[in-house]
Amino acid sequence: MSIERAVYLPLGGAGEIGMNCYVYGYGAEGRERFIVVDLGVTFPDMDTTPGVDLILPDVAWLEERKDRIDGVFITHAHEDHVGAVGHLFGRVGAPVFCRAFTANIARRKLDEYGVGPEAVTTVSPYPETVEVGPFKVAFVPISHSIPESSGLVIDTPDGRIVHTGDFKIDETPLVGEAFDRALWEEISKPGVKALVCDSTNVFSRNEGRSEATVGPEITKLVESAEGMVVATTFASNIARVKTLAEAGVAAGRSVCLLGRAMSRMIEAAVETGILTDFPSLVTPEDAVSLPRQNLMLVVTGSQGERRAASAQLARGKYRGITMKEGDMFLFSSKTIPGNERGVISIINQFSEMGVDVVDDSSGLYHVSGHANRPDLETMHDIVKPQILIPMHGEHRHLREHVKIAKSKGMAGVVAVNGMMVDLGGNAPSVSEYVETGRTYLDGSVQVGALDGIVRDRMRMALNGHVIVTVIIDEEGEPLGEPWCEIKGIAEQGASNAPLVDILEEDLSQFLRRADDRTLADDDKLEEQMKRIVRQATQAEIGKKVEVTSVISRLS
Amino acid sequence: MSIERAVYLPLGGAGEIGMNCYVYGYGAEGRERFIVVDLGVTFPDMDTTPGVDLILPDVAWLEERKDRIDGVFITHAHEDHVGAVGHLFGRVGAPVFCRAFTANIARRKLDEYGVGPEAVTTVSPYPETVEVGPFKVAFVPISHSIPESSGLVIDTPDGRIVHTGDFKIDETPLVGEAFDRALWEEISKPGVKALVCDSTNVFSRNEGRSEATVGPEITKLVESAEGMVVATTFASNIARVKTLAEAGVAAGRSVCLLGRAMSRMIEAAVETGILTDFPSLVTPEDAVSLPRQNLMLVVTGSQGERRAASAQLARGKYRGITMKEGDMFLFSSKTIPGNERGVISIINQFSEMGVDVVDDSSGLYHVSGHANRPDLETMHDIVKPQILIPMHGEHRHLREHVKIAKSKGMAGVVAVNGMMVDLGGNAPSVSEYVETGRTYLDGSVQVGALDGIVRDRMRMALNGHVIVTVIIDEEGEPLGEPWCEIKGIAEQGASNAPLVDILEEDLSQFLRRADDRTLADDDKLEEQMKRIVRQATQAEIGKKVEVTSVISRLS
Repeated sequence: MSIERAVYLPLGGAGEIGMNCYVYGYGAEGRERFIVVDLGVTFPDMDTTPGVDLILPDVAWLEERKDRIDGVFITHAHEDHVGAVGHLFGRVGAPVFCRAFTANIARRKLDEYGVGPEAVTTVSPYPETVEVGPFKVAFVPISHSIPESSGLVIDTPDGRIVHTGDFKIDETPLVGEAFDRALWEEISKPGVKALVCDSTNVFSRNEGRSEATVGPEITKLVESAEGMVVATTFASNIARVKTLAEAGVAAGRSVCLLGRAMSRMIEAAVETGILTDFPSLVTPEDAVSLPRQNLMLVVTGSQGERRAASAQLARGKYRGITMKEGDMFLFSSKTIPGNERGVISIINQFSEMGVDVVDDSSGLYHVSGHANRPDLETMHDIVKPQILIPMHGEHRHLREHVKIAKSKGMAGVVAVNGMMVDLGGNAPSVSEYVETGRTYLDGSVQVGALDGIVRDRMRMALNGHVIVTVIIDEEGEPLGEPWCEIKGIAEQGASNAPLVDILEEDLSQFLRRADDRTLADDDKLEEQMKRIVRQATQAEIGKKVEVTSVISRLS
Repeated sequence: MSIERAVYLPLGGAGEIGMNCYVYGYGAEGRERFIVVDLGVTFPDMDTTPGVDLILPDVAWLEERKDRIDGVFITHAHEDHVGAVGHLFGRVGAPVFCRAFTANIARRKLDEYGVGPEAVTTVSPYPETVEVGPFKVAFVPISHSIPESSGLVIDTPDGRIVHTGDFKIDETPLVGEAFDRALWEEISKPGVKALVCDSTNVFSRNEGRSEATVGPEITKLVESAEGMVVATTFASNIARVKTLAEAGVAAGRSVCLLGRAMSRMIEAAVETGILTDFPSLVTPEDAVSLPRQNLMLVVTGSQGERRAASAQLARGKYRGITMKEGDMFLFSSKTIPGNERGVISIINQFSEMGVDVVDDSSGLYHVSGHANRPDLETMHDIVKPQILIPMHGEHRHLREHVKIAKSKGMAGVVAVNGMMVDLGGNAPSVSEYVETGRTYLDGSVQVGALDGIVRDRMRMALNGHVIVTVIIDEEGEPLGEPWCEIKGIAEQGASNAPLVDILEEDLSQFLRRADDRTLADDDKLEEQMKRIVRQATQAEIGKKVEVTSVISRLS
């Protein structure tokens, strides 16, 4: 009989930044009970996932063990932690636990799927503890860039596990709870088996800076501005939104928020009592009539998202407001790798309008929500775990984080998505490799990343698409001539004749000569026609195109 | 009768970094003679130009004035300056002038189009002068990151114009000519009407660093390494390739180059006598059998290009060589905005192998080839032009550069692609807006950016593609049922029935009810069928797909 033991299994977030989904289990092999920590999303891009709406963790493995899942715990309300809860709730089939602010957001997401608010249980912070199956779980407040972020203390019969969630060490976070060293020391006192720890900023060697350092600089900047000031940040960074709004007020300006995501977040913060003293706002309708030097907008779209307020303002009028020469636009945010092009394009559009753009290159107007290396080490020193398991990082971050752990005498293991780590023995060991991957939300359908759908789209995008239609009559003979439609392909190439004519001529010749066996066999016919089309396009336009052939048989 | 005057017209490179193509003219309006400076390319991306091979300036305006173009002058051999010379030579139809190293590269490109070497005239540096039409043009050596980079001194009857080309102020560039302040002062002495000036690094406020500062740091790094060392940089940065190779030798290692682009560049540098003392190399075949601690590879692919040596090594074995735990990979390069994802993906692949990656975050192992702001100001002060026209920059760079000029009492003008600037009067003025754009090299065909071809590809990539086929018989009645093929679309949606079946059923119903007028009219029929398909896909899978309908009429 196999031994009962605790296991850790990341299904998302380990080997990438985003799409967080971590599984903890306890029990004998094959009979473990599980809890899930976070159900996040990651975002598609044209390079690898054109047309996809959202990327979710592949929870097929969990779905097969649905009856053994005791709960889903969401650490905080960022999309990469809570974003998939609506889409995957039905498949995971377990109650959701989170703190009030996160619950507010999670319930909005579940509501879109017709799931009622009772699916989410609101939990107070430590020492309140949720007991499910063999687990006792408590939410321990930790500072990050969204209210009520929490680390989790997970007690199993095998010992205590601390899952940091996303965090930084900030003793003056302005909104929400400060990092409470005494509390974390208290939690660590009984001894911690494993610390599963945020790794995002492991390569940042300087000490982290508090949210409180940003306000005075932004206030100075806004005070120096002469025209309208527009500032963008992450909608969920309530503290920053507040700092920006207060800077506007301090500079004698009326403040207006633009962008639905931001309004929603502020709403949630007010509903849950987190925000009590937010400056009073003017509506976009009222803002239009104010003198521009008396106006400050705080807007969505810090990552250059095409439909967010920043991009709309960069393209022209948005909700009646137009920026112009002498105005200032502030990015109180960093550009996430991969979003540079969108952000730079906005900056250039503002430049064309004569708007002065202030980005974060000075380091004055933004601080990260993640612990830098010295702060990670502080966390290690407080928790003193037997084992460090880095998470929330690409492979390079996880590897570097393990190096630090080992240099300090801790056991450490690079566990990427799909690696099940056995925490039971004296040293962590990989007990199993689980098949994991990504699920694409494509329109309203969930499709597998390997289903070939997106691959086909990319092929059409790279190569263009030729559609060949042939009619075969009742006698098995071609009826009339074959014809071609092209899409995403040059209409004319080397021969200076329409490409379609050349393709149709080549196909006609082939059909005239084709024997009965070929004409009777759809696969053979299709294969031959594809070959002919690709040869001809290669010769004419230097491309091997995608070909779809439609063979219509009259019968 | 209109007055003869000098004009400046950027067709590429002004409002973007890349695809450089600048036109200078002299004469009365409509009868000017022209020279072209640089014929560069820019690179496609999946976001905006899927499947495109290269992006060239749209030279339609020049082509219409072919008989008035007196020459094409190429400042240096970077792809964004010389890359389009093969593809566009026939359309511009003028002799090409450049210095020996650039000529070597330009001739290779023309050769691919069957254009002989005589199309390129090799010019010695200033004081040698090319007289064409009303222009006297000399190549003035200037330091950059590729050998024989040159600024141009362009004398017109209207005065002297200095076109810097890409440059930095480097008095110890290691390979090629040092920045020669006395020479630039001599050239500027007679008075310069306009300085058309590189703007790439206008936002970098620190002083530029010399190429010579990099070598000692790299040598130290290589000496400290225990396993194999692999370093990448831009293939054309001959000085850096040499520095890297010498660092390998200094550390007692055999050096091997990997990547065709790099070998080609070194070859050109040797052929033109620029490189005389390059360390001796081992072949990849010999490298395989050397102990890894005795080996240093210098490889292509610093921007994460999928087919270059770096990416190949990151994916596994390349030319018999495999990297492994304990090896080191050095990026002696910066990541160009937009290429972050590719580079980061390589770093993570190396991390999985246990290879230690050293990037440029320390600033020790790479210096830029462009003048930072203080060096731009030095250039202004040396040349003392009446007018500063910034080029080689996005809008934000050009605008900032003009701000600097104005603060120093110069006239300045932000001239973006298509803006013709009249240099004749006392102050620069925009005399005309010329239609410009981009030409895509797509396979072997040049297509216009607005031809709709790439737009169609992107639509297929974002929405998927449904092909509807209907046969209409001799009596104008549908023959059999319509049918659908789908590509890049989920096979099943809300109804849990095959999407194709649902579409075919909806179309059948429509055809059964369609009146004769609709059935007789291809456009009407097509429009209706598209509408039906899009409604059905929206309901089933939440997407409005691309639809191609093929209506076959038997006759």
